[in-house]
Amino acid sequence: MSSIKSAVIDYKPSEMNGNDHYDGSRPWKLDATNIKVTINKNPRTVPDPGSAEERSQKVCSDHMVSAVWTLKDGWQQPEITPYGPLPIMPTANVLHYATECFEGLKLYRGMDGKLRLFRPLANCARMVKSAERISLPGFEPEALVEMIRRLCAMDGSKWLPAHCRGSFLYIRPALIGTDPCLGFEVPKEALLYVVISYWPQPSYSDGARGLRLLASEAEELRAWPGGTGFAKIGPNYGPALKAHGRAKRTGCDQVLWLYGEDCQITEAGSSNVFIVRRESNRQLQMVTPPLEGGSILAGVTRQSILELVRARLSGDTTKEVGPVESIEKNFTMGELLQDLSDGNLEGVFICGTAAFVTSISVIEFRGRTIELPNNNLALVSLLRKWLFDIMYGGEKSEWADIIEEF
Amino acid sequence: MSSIKSAVIDYKPSEMNGNDHYDGSRPWKLDATNIKVTINKNPRTVPDPGSAEERSQKVCSDHMVSAVWTLKDGWQQPEITPYGPLPIMPTANVLHYATECFEGLKLYRGMDGKLRLFRPLANCARMVKSAERISLPGFEPEALVEMIRRLCAMDGSKWLPAHCRGSFLYIRPALIGTDPCLGFEVPKEALLYVVISYWPQPSYSDGARGLRLLASEAEELRAWPGGTGFAKIGPNYGPALKAHGRAKRTGCDQVLWLYGEDCQITEAGSSNVFIVRRESNRQLQMVTPPLEGGSILAGVTRQSILELVRARLSGDTTKEVGPVESIEKNFTMGELLQDLSDGNLEGVFICGTAAFVTSISVIEFRGRTIELPNNNLALVSLLRKWLFDIMYGGEKSEWADIIEEF
Repeated sequence: MSSIKSAVIDYKPSEMNGNDHYDGSRPWKLDATNIKVTINKNPRTVPDPGSAEERSQKVCSDHMVSAVWTLKDGWQQPEITPYGPLPIMPTANVLHYATECFEGLKLYRGMDGKLRLFRPLANCARMVKSAERISLPGFEPEALVEMIRRLCAMDGSKWLPAHCRGSFLYIRPALIGTDPCLGFEVPKEALLYVVISYWPQPSYSDGARGLRLLASEAEELRAWPGGTGFAKIGPNYGPALKAHGRAKRTGCDQVLWLYGEDCQITEAGSSNVFIVRRESNRQLQMVTPPLEGGSILAGVTRQSILELVRARLSGDTTKEVGPVESIEKNFTMGELLQDLSDGNLEGVFICGTAAFVTSISVIEFRGRTIELPNNNLALVSLLRKWLFDIMYGGEKSEWADIIEEF
Repeated sequence: MSSIKSAVIDYKPSEMNGNDHYDGSRPWKLDATNIKVTINKNPRTVPDPGSAEERSQKVCSDHMVSAVWTLKDGWQQPEITPYGPLPIMPTANVLHYATECFEGLKLYRGMDGKLRLFRPLANCARMVKSAERISLPGFEPEALVEMIRRLCAMDGSKWLPAHCRGSFLYIRPALIGTDPCLGFEVPKEALLYVVISYWPQPSYSDGARGLRLLASEAEELRAWPGGTGFAKIGPNYGPALKAHGRAKRTGCDQVLWLYGEDCQITEAGSSNVFIVRRESNRQLQMVTPPLEGGSILAGVTRQSILELVRARLSGDTTKEVGPVESIEKNFTMGELLQDLSDGNLEGVFICGTAAFVTSISVIEFRGRTIELPNNNLALVSLLRKWLFDIMYGGEKSEWADIIEEF
């Protein structure tokens, strides 16, 4: 089995120089080696497993970690404090001009009882790029990883106890412009913070019903060339809620975001999309939209799947699945329908930190209900198993970052 | 002089049915007839006129007015409370998914000593449309006008005293999704609030230097067909800060937002743009981009200028300026350069609540410095005078909304 070389995806520190705030001579050093800790003296009760409270996505753990930035003084010492409301001025940029970006990771309780993160540096490096796009200050991604690790080490034992093997918590880092100034200017104050919350468990079972996607209408776009689709910034999400709400009302789970007159498949909800198909020579092929053009989020799960398939399923193979060719290129609804009628479509799946790896069963495409085949089940099962094993300690991997609990 | 028929611009209550939350049977009634008031017992000192504190755009008046909405109970009774920080949960939608929209109005201290608003219903009706686009709850625009009026009546006398004739304060209504839930769903809780702040005085004098605009690059878009350019939502603003920051660093005041391969002129900063030119028959013409397509904000000042010019300067006229034909159509940088070389370009100005009516002197267009003529000074002066007179009580108008002070 090929080894996976690096836990980091595409992190180029030099790109931080693109940040409006970052002039090289002053690197906005974020020092997470010394985090101040204030213990929560009124900790809350952990919700019962499977309770409505747990499923509400409103319950966070006892603490949060945060760091204040000002243009004048740079990043201040990070602090772990009791989880609670943020006092935000009514004039803060984030409330008016959407100066905000975020990340999503999970804290996994391994089958061996250990806590792990999955490629956290990839998320934190992406957050620096998102920050740059939305004119918020950069930082060393390693420092944010350290803040996350400390918070997980502190709250992990209580909120994801050792007996919850195979379970996870959701980790949400966010960076917001807190400058209390209504003038339309690059924020001079910001807050970086991380909270840990419950999140509905994705189905790890192969027999689960696939998701239904509602294709976006011609006049609805999630992202566009020259826009911000590549960045995990609030402005990519709020405007998408209108279509998302309609998808839910029509019995679908997510929006399938199409782009252009030829209906290129781009993303599904907040996940990346893979189309599994056979070439005319019957070669199995996985197609996902390319990052070039800047409209697609560089998903960590997407990238991990591409790397795993290239390392383990390309060329001749004696695996249960394969060989599989993985290609990053645009793929249109027309091509999908052609493959379907030619019998070349094996299936479609989406992937992401929240969605994990999930099959699509139906696409509602402008009045037409397209039932998708599920012939790619063996491939999807294999990808799930590989990722699950890395996340939950079944396989030793550089992608897994073990947290030592206090 | 033709009368101006209505204080309302393009307000169609039926459109509120497009709101995800608004199903007609339950109109999210916002009742502002009974506003609860809690007096600020620690009022702050009014900054000295012209002080750095006043110019900081960080000083707000003693009170704010707000109303809470929940999906379960609808809008609750609005409250006037002391101005201060909002306790926002770290998981609130607004901080992650940019579920936010806002408005900008001014409170004018008239030359007759009275306080006035300018077409406030137009702003509040536009805010309902913005709310619908960003999946926040609708309300009757008249109720928000009433909340604004009450706040102005309360704080106006102290913060914009009767002797400050010809001055104004800035009014900022905002609506944010406060639902403390990280799941990507239409918010079930929201907060509508209004604050009053200082804002730099635009120049009312005709001799002022015009603004310098930096034209956006080909890969930078503010808005696009199928997007959200028409709505005053946070997601249209944060992503524009990157180009705005570059404009400031290169000595420009604002970005001139271009669209398409033919470089259509769309907006400047957060203002609408007018090109003043002569047709081949020497007829004076004012061109501004059309609202159709949904990429241009329907500015209240823009609309007011169009209505004033159509009512007072169209056809034969004996005015100092005119006749002037006003046209809403796309206009490209190529057409502007052609007009300039043909001697047909009279000038360019921008307008908006913050910018008022301001001439442009230079456009930096992809390596080329375009010096603009200022032959439209008489027209710009006339528009300023008409608007100023309505805003500050020099002319009786349905567009002016007089506030009775407590």
